[in-house]
Amino acid sequence: MAGHQLLGLGKRDEFLHGLCTPGVRGDGLSVMLWPQPEPTVEDTMTPAGAAPTQICGLSLDDFLVRMEEFHGHASPGVTMGGFMVDAAWRQLGDAPYLNAAVETVVCLPDAVQMLTPCTLGNGFLQVLDWGKFALTLYDRKSLQGARAWLDVSRLEDYPLVANWYLRRPENQAVEKDEVVRAILAGGHGLVRVRPVRMRAGLKDQDKVPTTACPACGEYHPQRQGTLCPACAGQAYYDL
Amino acid sequence: MAGHQLLGLGKRDEFLHGLCTPGVRGDGLSVMLWPQPEPTVEDTMTPAGAAPTQICGLSLDDFLVRMEEFHGHASPGVTMGGFMVDAAWRQLGDAPYLNAAVETVVCLPDAVQMLTPCTLGNGFLQVLDWGKFALTLYDRKSLQGARAWLDVSRLEDYPLVANWYLRRPENQAVEKDEVVRAILAGGHGLVRVRPVRMRAGLKDQDKVPTTACPACGEYHPQRQGTLCPACAGQAYYDL
Repeated sequence: MAGHQLLGLGKRDEFLHGLCTPGVRGDGLSVMLWPQPEPTVEDTMTPAGAAPTQICGLSLDDFLVRMEEFHGHASPGVTMGGFMVDAAWRQLGDAPYLNAAVETVVCLPDAVQMLTPCTLGNGFLQVLDWGKFALTLYDRKSLQGARAWLDVSRLEDYPLVANWYLRRPENQAVEKDEVVRAILAGGHGLVRVRPVRMRAGLKDQDKVPTTACPACGEYHPQRQGTLCPACAGQAYYDL
Repeated sequence: MAGHQLLGLGKRDEFLHGLCTPGVRGDGLSVMLWPQPEPTVEDTMTPAGAAPTQICGLSLDDFLVRMEEFHGHASPGVTMGGFMVDAAWRQLGDAPYLNAAVETVVCLPDAVQMLTPCTLGNGFLQVLDWGKFALTLYDRKSLQGARAWLDVSRLEDYPLVANWYLRRPENQAVEKDEVVRAILAGGHGLVRVRPVRMRAGLKDQDKVPTTACPACGEYHPQRQGTLCPACAGQAYYDL
């Protein structure tokens, strides 16, 4: 298909927020060069009470549009996740080999995928099914990272946010849009962040040997045994 | 933040490919109304040898741009995944409550997230870490689905694709862009699809009770015990 031009690397970050610059290949995948922001620490972020104006370089309006485009609706979890990504990114600073880890499958993966070059499918986002509302951005070569989490002690002045996050019955009658507005008002003041050092990169770099399943003919990792998971009894579907 | 307008639902699909129409809320999340395509079955798809012209309503050029924007580079796996999503979608037909399941964490999650309203974070995409290059689109209410997979027996005429998929040593000297072009030439002819019936929807609808970890103070699911996974010894970071 010579008529189809394959674009150069790094287009995604331009599309996303203009913060990144195109990188070069490494580790068999494109390397996103994360920008070098002003050195910041938690204390220099928007304090509680001061309305934030941006998330990862996006205006709040642009963030809301992108959230509804990607996630499908205005989501308290993705909005909070946006401030967490922003806080971790500011804390981390320069990270040429950016990876991300989220500690829940709910909402936070979309905040990371919307705002950084890290996706589940490209392997730069790892998802831990811990049920914890926290995430870490880190450089997979230096293993320096920044972990952000929602601080329940900071929710006292934001009852709508507290009722949502703590799953109180009072939240059931509240529209999600109202909770989103409350989170936007609280901004970075709801989030805590601190530097961490990764024990190891989470990305599994190894390509494992595969083999054809004798029952269905489809390829699967040899380490699973002869039969693939579906033919071994785990199928989620009937033919 | 009254100044920030929260958009209506369904913007994502307009952004994605103009195939979907805005839906209404249901199940506590927005419902994407998937369009009703012409009834099709596998035999009516692009036969091997006939070059495809579209993936999920996108021109191949637009698909390539979107892949590089979201995934970060031209990826054989995401390209193949695009044809698999397209094949499953054509086979499935009308599915007002669309969900997706992918059977590997590699590449396929991004094809689904690029081309459908289903994301990991909104819960409409489930990811099975089976290492199988297959995916299913289904309606979570009717449980009717369509599963698509790469058929190795169809790769005989596409040695670059076979070398890539079967991880042969010959693939190591080949640029990914070349493999992508070979997959674009093969198109739907490389993919098989068949109707399936889901045994159950994969989306976990239950909100589980959470509790504060006495060590770190962060909230986590009660079912994990007193300590959160990190404080119980699974932390991936040091402070």
